[in-house]
Amino acid sequence: MSQRDDVLRDLVIGNRVLSNEGVVDAYGHLSARHPEAPERFFLSRSLAPEFVDLGDIIEFGLDGETATGDRRAPYLERFIHSSIYAARPDVMAVVHAHAEDVLPFGISKQPLVPVIHSGAFIGGEVPVWDIADRFGDETNLLVTNSEQGNDLAQRLGGNNVVLMRGHGFAAAAGSIVDVVRMSIYLPRNARALMNALRLGEVKPLSKGEIGARSRGGGYRPNSPETWRAWQYWAHRAGCGEMLPERPED
Amino acid sequence: MSQRDDVLRDLVIGNRVLSNEGVVDAYGHLSARHPEAPERFFLSRSLAPEFVDLGDIIEFGLDGETATGDRRAPYLERFIHSSIYAARPDVMAVVHAHAEDVLPFGISKQPLVPVIHSGAFIGGEVPVWDIADRFGDETNLLVTNSEQGNDLAQRLGGNNVVLMRGHGFAAAAGSIVDVVRMSIYLPRNARALMNALRLGEVKPLSKGEIGARSRGGGYRPNSPETWRAWQYWAHRAGCGEMLPERPED
Amino acid sequence: MSQRDDVLRDLVIGNRVLSNEGVVDAYGHLSARHPEAPERFFLSRSLAPEFVDLGDIIEFGLDGETATGDRRAPYLERFIHSSIYAARPDVMAVVHAHAEDVLPFGISKQPLVPVIHSGAFIGGEVPVWDIADRFGDETNLLVTNSEQGNDLAQRLGGNNVVLMRGHGFAAAAGSIVDVVRMSIYLPRNARALMNALRLGEVKPLSKGEIGARSRGGGYRPNSPETWRAWQYWAHRAGCGEMLPERPED
Amino acid sequence: MSQRDDVLRDLVIGNRVLSNEGVVDAYGHLSARHPEAPERFFLSRSLAPEFVDLGDIIEFGLDGETATGDRRAPYLERFIHSSIYAARPDVMAVVHAHAEDVLPFGISKQPLVPVIHSGAFIGGEVPVWDIADRFGDETNLLVTNSEQGNDLAQRLGGNNVVLMRGHGFAAAAGSIVDVVRMSIYLPRNARALMNALRLGEVKPLSKGEIGARSRGGGYRPNSPETWRAWQYWAHRAGCGEMLPERPED
Repeated sequence: MSQRDDVLRDLVIGNRVLSNEGVVDAYGHLSARHPEAPERFFLSRSLAPEFVDLGDIIEFGLDGETATGDRRAPYLERFIHSSIYAARPDVMAVVHAHAEDVLPFGISKQPLVPVIHSGAFIGGEVPVWDIADRFGDETNLLVTNSEQGNDLAQRLGGNNVVLMRGHGFAAAAGSIVDVVRMSIYLPRNARALMNALRLGEVKPLSKGEIGARSRGGGYRPNSPETWRAWQYWAHRAGCGEMLPERPED
Repeated sequence: MSQRDDVLRDLVIGNRVLSNEGVVDAYGHLSARHPEAPERFFLSRSLAPEFVDLGDIIEFGLDGETATGDRRAPYLERFIHSSIYAARPDVMAVVHAHAEDVLPFGISKQPLVPVIHSGAFIGGEVPVWDIADRFGDETNLLVTNSEQGNDLAQRLGGNNVVLMRGHGFAAAAGSIVDVVRMSIYLPRNARALMNALRLGEVKPLSKGEIGARSRGGGYRPNSPETWRAWQYWAHRAGCGEMLPERPED
Repeated sequence: MSQRDDVLRDLVIGNRVLSNEGVVDAYGHLSARHPEAPERFFLSRSLAPEFVDLGDIIEFGLDGETATGDRRAPYLERFIHSSIYAARPDVMAVVHAHAEDVLPFGISKQPLVPVIHSGAFIGGEVPVWDIADRFGDETNLLVTNSEQGNDLAQRLGGNNVVLMRGHGFAAAAGSIVDVVRMSIYLPRNARALMNALRLGEVKPLSKGEIGARSRGGGYRPNSPETWRAWQYWAHRAGCGEMLPERPED
Repeated sequence: MSQRDDVLRDLVIGNRVLSNEGVVDAYGHLSARHPEAPERFFLSRSLAPEFVDLGDIIEFGLDGETATGDRRAPYLERFIHSSIYAARPDVMAVVHAHAEDVLPFGISKQPLVPVIHSGAFIGGEVPVWDIADRFGDETNLLVTNSEQGNDLAQRLGGNNVVLMRGHGFAAAAGSIVDVVRMSIYLPRNARALMNALRLGEVKPLSKGEIGARSRGGGYRPNSPETWRAWQYWAHRAGCGEMLPERPED
């Protein structure tokens, strides 16, 4: 299989995992940059992630328009993806989702800080993008053009995650597996933080701990620990048989 | 298929979707106005929504009485539906449900305001109808005649949703798909709001944002986005095979 | 079928329903008074309610001892049941369970009051029985003899439900269907109340409303509304085929 | 079957039970001491607990290194297990998990105290181990060597459970069944406590009650009550057929 085939396979698995783990429902999407043509990315046509298969995936350019003349209805918010790929050459995969337990941190003033080791990717705290800041308070809150997408990407900056006020979040990472992992642990960190705040003062991860984990002290792509979770999520989502073979499995 | 057949099919799908998504259980119901005879509406006999099939659906008049002489036991609270259809010619479908996370807003003084884009249909805030205000504090809280139904419909006014103190809510919309969507997102908006309030001050959707979404900037019937959710919910509820065919699917 | 057979069948269905609805897990139990011999009652041997079948049911006397010489291990806490049947001739079925969302009201000072129409059976508020009040603070919290059971039954008094501090609750009703219904709606009322209290001042059901519902204005045994829920719960629990036939079904 | 075979079988069942009950996901692990060679213990290779089978189990020494030359990737945090077995000769089984509802008590100052009878094993309160106290604030929070493991074991002391700040918990008991039981009831006690604290002042179990339960007044290994839960959990996890036969079952 080519690198492209690997990415498309992981994109299908990732879509179903995100749905099965409750990160996306009928809405929300996962994309991946073309591994051999960095100015293009893959994203499903307008379809609930649970149903996404290889044939549903469309190739887009960094302007958010179809690169291959495909005429099927695309996601309205594909500009979230195109703008992040344009702004961040290091990013190979993007998730946009409305995961419920993340929403409170986009509409209150409490910062979403990392409090569990698996939430270290959050960094110091998650920035919040409010579409009203630049586009006024008469939008429909959706990111439906490159201007809005670019503004969101700017707020994301060099972070892994940005919250979108009254809407959801976007996550960006170096691989599909990694961005799926972040999208699953972001709501979990949010819940732990919400519950802990109700108990009183909370101790978040320290800068040193966040740094240690991001420097490879924690998550490493292709490690047995990473594979363990990917295999687990894929089996739970009913697509374990799509996984490539690995020694020992 | 006739328009009537389409409505009856969607009514069956909608019943099962509402049950599968946890909006209704043994109680709660979904109705639809007759598309060709606006003074009539369709509603199941007294049956848990999960089990509703075409043969269970009864035709009622706007007085809440059976229009066809059907003698099977009807829902006691069918007057919620008849009164709303009588008061609101624009309404083509109604849900009454007890969804758990909506209940707190009917028994406290905290208004249920929209805080997520998919909750924009809530409008400025959801009105609360307290049966005791007009009918005293010795009712059984159920809406079991037209007088109570009409009072509820009046409190609903031109809104999409009205809460019923100590009981649940009623939602009214221009189509079955739309009223089901509202009934699924109402509890989600309620949960996001409850959790955010515990974190401090909350920023709701602005009037402009609510307006932009209701003017078609957000949800549009028959759009790919609307269909995407309907298809997703129907498949999850195990009745995906009842869906009509659409291009690309 | 005899009345006894009907009760045994409902007892099996009720055990599985309570398990499937999350009211009991490996622990907790449902009993029913013998319909023809009021000084006896039926209760499973020591077994998780999900697995209870006709052959597991043992007949007990009002002293909590086996009435038929059955030597299989009984539940340690069968005295909850025997004592309530002894004290309350009107009671035909009893549940003891540890349902999680009811527990907070047994260990704090906030009374569990009815706030939703389906919680009207709670009455003015649920009494809390603290085993330490009479038996000191060195018990294992279980009700393992008639003395403790009688003390609990006394605290229950003429109510439908009593909370047990740090342990769970006991519910008593005129039929299996009714006690199962109460056991399912008690945690739901508890959750609605907990969430509403976090939003501020709460309006509970009025005395008049509680009275109206208990006088048959709300729940009536054998009504279509009652059957609707029993049928729904039984099907969800996988034992719908055990239900007796009814007209229209 | 030998004692060793019994332990290995229970270890497989226990892994799947912990996964099915939501205590572990892709991460977290269960080990058991070798019943005939107390300086060794059994632990799966790096694999999600849901998938663990007999062939995945590796034998380790009390230094956390493979005792049999097995070269498959082990869990990074096996030192949690080895250090506890080294420090506590009475301990026959250990769980490490990240169960979500326990996390708030590791990052706030609210002690996790027992409030329900099934949480009595918590003791007076659960100690919290903060890796930063001794190893500084630049670790990745994982326990990846014996020095860290020994420090954790020391904080555990003679208790059954220790929380790990920003990470999870470790539980230690005299049998696999017992440590699984503790791991399931720890989050439940945590939820009851969190909810009760929001209602006001809370009454925890008394010292006398904790003592009465730990002296066998509550949980007893091999009692019908213990077996009832083990059987229930195993069936729910889909491995009921692995259970040994018992009279009456």
